[in-house]
Amino acid sequence: MSDTDTDAAQRPLTLLGLGDMGTALARTWLAAGHPVTVWNRTAAKAQALAGAGASVAADAAEAVAANDLVVVCLLDDTSVGTALDGIDLTGKDLVNLTTGTPAEGRERAAWAAQRGARFVDGGIMATPDMIGAPETGGYIFYSGSQALFEAHRTVLEVPAGARFVGTDPGHAALHDVALLSGMYGLFAGISHAFALIDGEDIAPKDLAPLLSEWLVAMGFFVANAAERLTSGDLTTGVVSNLAMQVAASGTLLRTAEEQGVSAELIRPYLDLMRRRLEADEAAHGGEDTSGVITLLKR
Amino acid sequence: MSDTDTDAAQRPLTLLGLGDMGTALARTWLAAGHPVTVWNRTAAKAQALAGAGASVAADAAEAVAANDLVVVCLLDDTSVGTALDGIDLTGKDLVNLTTGTPAEGRERAAWAAQRGARFVDGGIMATPDMIGAPETGGYIFYSGSQALFEAHRTVLEVPAGARFVGTDPGHAALHDVALLSGMYGLFAGISHAFALIDGEDIAPKDLAPLLSEWLVAMGFFVANAAERLTSGDLTTGVVSNLAMQVAASGTLLRTAEEQGVSAELIRPYLDLMRRRLEADEAAHGGEDTSGVITLLKR
Ligand SMILES: NC(=O)c1ccc[n+]([C@@H]2O[C@H](COP(=O)([O-])OP(=O)(O)OC[C@H]3O[C@@H](n4cnc5c(N)ncnc54)[C@H](OP(=O)(O)O)[C@@H]3O)[C@@H](O)[C@H]2O)c1
Ligand SMILES: NC(=O)c1ccc[n+]([C@@H]2O[C@H](COP(=O)([O-])OP(=O)(O)OC[C@H]3O[C@@H](n4cnc5c(N)ncnc54)[C@H](OP(=O)(O)O)[C@@H]3O)[C@@H](O)[C@H]2O)c1
Repeated sequence: MSDTDTDAAQRPLTLLGLGDMGTALARTWLAAGHPVTVWNRTAAKAQALAGAGASVAADAAEAVAANDLVVVCLLDDTSVGTALDGIDLTGKDLVNLTTGTPAEGRERAAWAAQRGARFVDGGIMATPDMIGAPETGGYIFYSGSQALFEAHRTVLEVPAGARFVGTDPGHAALHDVALLSGMYGLFAGISHAFALIDGEDIAPKDLAPLLSEWLVAMGFFVANAAERLTSGDLTTGVVSNLAMQVAASGTLLRTAEEQGVSAELIRPYLDLMRRRLEADEAAHGGEDTSGVITLLKR
Repeated sequence: MSDTDTDAAQRPLTLLGLGDMGTALARTWLAAGHPVTVWNRTAAKAQALAGAGASVAADAAEAVAANDLVVVCLLDDTSVGTALDGIDLTGKDLVNLTTGTPAEGRERAAWAAQRGARFVDGGIMATPDMIGAPETGGYIFYSGSQALFEAHRTVLEVPAGARFVGTDPGHAALHDVALLSGMYGLFAGISHAFALIDGEDIAPKDLAPLLSEWLVAMGFFVANAAERLTSGDLTTGVVSNLAMQVAASGTLLRTAEEQGVSAELIRPYLDLMRRRLEADEAAHGGEDTSGVITLLKR
């Protein structure tokens, strides 16, 4: 262990909130040798951590006063406001790991600045069991004060990978929500696929590897869409054009109908492909499907 | 080249339909040394293949009469019925690579049996540029007569990988549609994610690798859902339970609202999660989200 690591491992911090996530964070920092002062609204959860070496503060104000670095992991943004209401934050480095929207991150940053604190917002891409388990690939998005992030980077990297995504304090939440939203689209497609084979003599475990392999291959659409959104060129090199995909979508809807499966999870995308095509068939017929993205913005 | 391969490479076949896909198929078989008799409703497309060595039949009946193995790749199932209407199929091996629904595959199989032909239906998981290019990973699902498939397997493997998925002639189409439907869910999620960052100081190319990596990791849901659908156990080992995910979904919808993005592509799945939870919070709150699949069946 280098001197720097030794120093970092001795840096103390405060953690407010000991739900499932906060408790996992606290245990990881304690295990790594950081003195941790904890507070939780329901005191029993803090007491449970005393045995693991945590200092238990009597109230949130005492916890905040104990250290410069204050990490908050509560239910939602409203509970952050409630828990920190009236507490002196002057000179504090506030790291908010509570899930929220981009606007909540920005407002909370302005609120912290007014109180004399530096602020970064975080978006946790991990479940509690992935905290302190780097092999799981879990990580946390951070955005806001880069100075704060750099000053505490070593500490912040203890529970999970730390990815700084810019000085806009809304961008950690925005990255978090973008990835989760993408995931629910993926889950929706997978769900529809399995519903289609229900009642057929096809085992879900036999469809699974075929579906996985196909979805991994179709993941090319991420890089492809990024490139087309950047260049504005939706047509060069398209092999399955929009006109053909719209024509083929009838087979998907009729199959859902035949199999007695609601098309609610796939119809919205097929409808948007058709809307894009019908807006100007000559202009859009030769595009790929990334034009759908532009229809989502109001 | 072994004797078997030499024999296989000399096996003649007939191909009806020379659209983009049929033309790619014909060129690949011709390049591999198979004598191919072709027919297309619009004769010019057949003439274009004569130069590549194809025998051009005067009409569909003549093309069918020329060989035992008859591959059909037309626009849709209706065009298959039209093109083969009144033509003697006795003793023929009919391979239908026209996209259709499972029911169309089954009805076409019964129709072929009545006419004394063996039948397999196919579902092409490739675009024309992937035909004859094994490195692209394109392949074709086949189902129906296993005897036909085995007899012609070597020929069928020339244009793309051949995957036999059972003797039910509807299952090639069902696999095809299941994978395509899954893909549109994936595309929907990706589209929503990119729409969220539109107008922000985040380059699509910077989000892309983060989103790709996350979606690949979340692809575990395919194997997970297959296992839970098989065992019926939706709760053991769940780390992000349904109750928590429903609670968190508000952040996704509010973020869409803040960013001026329509939630139409992600709301249906979030709604189904909530419906599953509300049906019986005590029973379903600790599940993962695979219970949504059961709600899709009518
Ligand atoms: N768990 C995950 O998988 C996961 C993943 C990524 C992100 N996150 C985020 O991490 C944060 C914490 O999640 P969690 O799983 O730890 O949730 P949790 O187990 O439900 O814990 C919620 C915490 O918030 C506290 N709290 C709620 N309302 C409060 C208020 N008005 N004033 C003070 N404290 C209040 C609770 O205190 P009491 O003990 O007194 O109720 C508890 O400490 C959330 O924003 C969540 O979205 C969680
Ligand atoms: N292209 C792809 O990426 C792709 C991928 C997977 C599956 N497929 C499937 O492959 C099949 C063919 O696709 P394609 O790309 O070759 O389509 P295409 O280029 O539009 O060609 C359609 C073919 O069907 C013929 N046809 C249409 N109606 C007919 C009728 N009533 N009677 C006789 N012939 C008729 C056309 O003849 P004319 O030349 O006279 O119009 C042409 O040969 C479709 O089922 C498609 O879904 C295609």
